[in-house]
Amino acid sequence: MVGVFRSIPIRSRLTRFIFGHPHGVSHHNYTMLSSRGVRSAGMLDIPWRYAPTQSYDKDTNPDGLISFAMAENIPMRKEIVKYINEKVTFTEDSIGYRPKPSTAARLPAALADHLNRNFKPHVPVDPNTILVASSPTALGGMLGYSLAEPGEGILVSRPMYGRFELDYGVEAGVEIVYADTGPVEAFTPAAVEKYEAALKKAEEKGTKIRAVLVVNPNNPVGRCYPPETLKELLKFCQKHQLHYISDEVYGLSVFDSGDPDAVPFTSVLSLDLSGLIDPKLVHVLYGFSKDFASGGLHLGFLISQNEQLQKACKAILRLHPASRAAVTIGTTILEDQEFVDSIIAKARNGLAASYKLATSTLEREGIRYVKGGNAGFFIYIDLSPYLPTDPGLSAQQREFSLAQKLVDAGVFLHPGEEHSKEPGWFRLVFSQEEEVLVEGLRRIFSVLKGK
Amino acid sequence: MVGVFRSIPIRSRLTRFIFGHPHGVSHHNYTMLSSRGVRSAGMLDIPWRYAPTQSYDKDTNPDGLISFAMAENIPMRKEIVKYINEKVTFTEDSIGYRPKPSTAARLPAALADHLNRNFKPHVPVDPNTILVASSPTALGGMLGYSLAEPGEGILVSRPMYGRFELDYGVEAGVEIVYADTGPVEAFTPAAVEKYEAALKKAEEKGTKIRAVLVVNPNNPVGRCYPPETLKELLKFCQKHQLHYISDEVYGLSVFDSGDPDAVPFTSVLSLDLSGLIDPKLVHVLYGFSKDFASGGLHLGFLISQNEQLQKACKAILRLHPASRAAVTIGTTILEDQEFVDSIIAKARNGLAASYKLATSTLEREGIRYVKGGNAGFFIYIDLSPYLPTDPGLSAQQREFSLAQKLVDAGVFLHPGEEHSKEPGWFRLVFSQEEEVLVEGLRRIFSVLKGK
Repeated sequence: MVGVFRSIPIRSRLTRFIFGHPHGVSHHNYTMLSSRGVRSAGMLDIPWRYAPTQSYDKDTNPDGLISFAMAENIPMRKEIVKYINEKVTFTEDSIGYRPKPSTAARLPAALADHLNRNFKPHVPVDPNTILVASSPTALGGMLGYSLAEPGEGILVSRPMYGRFELDYGVEAGVEIVYADTGPVEAFTPAAVEKYEAALKKAEEKGTKIRAVLVVNPNNPVGRCYPPETLKELLKFCQKHQLHYISDEVYGLSVFDSGDPDAVPFTSVLSLDLSGLIDPKLVHVLYGFSKDFASGGLHLGFLISQNEQLQKACKAILRLHPASRAAVTIGTTILEDQEFVDSIIAKARNGLAASYKLATSTLEREGIRYVKGGNAGFFIYIDLSPYLPTDPGLSAQQREFSLAQKLVDAGVFLHPGEEHSKEPGWFRLVFSQEEEVLVEGLRRIFSVLKGK
Repeated sequence: MVGVFRSIPIRSRLTRFIFGHPHGVSHHNYTMLSSRGVRSAGMLDIPWRYAPTQSYDKDTNPDGLISFAMAENIPMRKEIVKYINEKVTFTEDSIGYRPKPSTAARLPAALADHLNRNFKPHVPVDPNTILVASSPTALGGMLGYSLAEPGEGILVSRPMYGRFELDYGVEAGVEIVYADTGPVEAFTPAAVEKYEAALKKAEEKGTKIRAVLVVNPNNPVGRCYPPETLKELLKFCQKHQLHYISDEVYGLSVFDSGDPDAVPFTSVLSLDLSGLIDPKLVHVLYGFSKDFASGGLHLGFLISQNEQLQKACKAILRLHPASRAAVTIGTTILEDQEFVDSIIAKARNGLAASYKLATSTLEREGIRYVKGGNAGFFIYIDLSPYLPTDPGLSAQQREFSLAQKLVDAGVFLHPGEEHSKEPGWFRLVFSQEEEVLVEGLRRIFSVLKGK
């Protein structure tokens, strides 16, 4: 998959899947749709793109599937739900089209307070720079639409959360362009040279780059970026007049891994941008999906001083609004700083424990992984020694084959999603209840080691 | 506005507003955005497009604005909120990315039951034909994207809820094309001739029509369509292979107006489509915004047997998802049939009383309106005798001028939004608390009659 996905633009790639895939659909079937409707529908036909859901339950479905693919802090969900049931009161502003102005002001104010307390901003976050929408995912689509023309590109390092191709591509038609970095190299200031090379190559092929997207803390590597790397990337954006999109949805899901060399989280908001970049080129994404274990709440935020962009996003917000019930929940939580502090602390402790359990198991079994992780819900692991070696198989087929064996053993790792330079790397999501994590790892090793 | 908006495609119209409006923005200001971002941002500059919010409160803000522009059943909101606070229990499936399959099946099943009990479907609604998204508004954008190319058209009668131009146009770039009907004519079988003429004219100008959008019960006229008219429109769609989009969000907001000639509601689901149209061309929109007074909950449904369309919409649903908290609320409500029956009955009684109060006041004051209304939250009224007559003013300027006078007197009617053939018609939303309705009407007449 890596080889195929690296060089072919999303449109032709998808067209091939739609029209060329043996189990795909023929053009004839889609005569009732627009060409872009056909393109979107075809995205569901890409093998493995839509992952199976976890169905395992120790008591009720012990043979069910354990998924290590969905980046969700599962153990924290019960804490959030308990709080909602006990503390949240809904009002007419939770269901009406437009809340009272005093209500409408509360969530941006509470989020600004939250960021000012936790992200160490260089200048306090102004609530007026915050746009509330349905999720960081939807905001990705909105940024793609508002910042780039169809077919233009957004530059990311490699490996990278693969679904950005959907967020920015599925409607806006914006291409994700990969800088050819490795999973450790991507965090070094020197990585900017790979961004330069990718920019040059893309523009030579006629793909104009409009933005750099940095996920910090990083998904899938689980590391934070050192400030000197962030500064190089900001200067790179300023030099080429690119937007700098900082996806900081894991900003508080940073934990003590016990590794003294692990890099602490530095929000781009905490940097003095003067001399680095025009602040109007810098846009931060945040939301409830990760630090608040509420991906299904669909509550996301854009923080940007760019009034043009804010206005463009407001105009299309009618298609991507947060539910006002979700806004009520989010407001109540963020205004309760004591609760926020307690769940962030609890989440960090839980992540640290799961991370240590997972990494010690990997080490015991001799599985290589990217060290230095201290953030997010995942470990980037190297299963290349376990790929089938049949000479007739492509790199993609080898990854798919291993993934199928794992699924057959009741555990799912998403093949090819993170666009590693080398085949065989997988993102392992460890933010599970301990018993599920242990059982899922056991299933993996039953396949890899035949035990 | 009517004269201007009738003939100019949305793109050039907006471009003019962006670049030509005296208070608009210059191109120079938008150099950081894509061309479509500029277009979207410019939509916020259209005069009156974004209406002021109701701020009136008898006790705390008696000088605040009363808005008769937002189609919301305000008196019913407190009933829904009370129910949510008393009856809804949230679970991990309310905040997680993916609910358990048993949970995921509940809302489509409950909605199918609801429609089967209340919409008299010819064939029972199958839960598998239901797609849950964030709102009928977002679904409009999704249908525009999936069914039409940018610049293609969707045909509607006149007058019509004006924001469809945003729903279908703001991202998907699909044009709303108006059949040149009057507010009574639009409900007659003969109206299909006006649709034919509009289709012909649009296609001669190079705008391919891909769908007809029928709002039944109608917004802004407040009437339901007789089955013979629906059948003619369905045959028209079959003849030209157009999609038939039936927006039925007011389906249960039908009341006894006391007019024996008022037409009862006929869902397109209740018609035997055989011999009329390919069922795969028929798509129904429903949601919680109107019949459940919960526009801000952002919970909408597409009911369609077209598997291609379902698939295309599922692929872009990641940008338009309903909050799972809203899904929990909606599921709990729809599964409680006793509660649904009670609030629907209460809403109908309230709408009937408000309608009678508003129409009797209009008649006493000699204001003409479209009779025969028995549905929705609005009355379509003729204020053309009160438009300023200065010869230098355009029709749009005359409507804006009257709207400004009304706002100055503390009441808002949205000028030009419904694209009447003749200037001076306004949609009056009456679904307010009685005291607010009386005070708002008093303010209108203080302007019109100088009393």
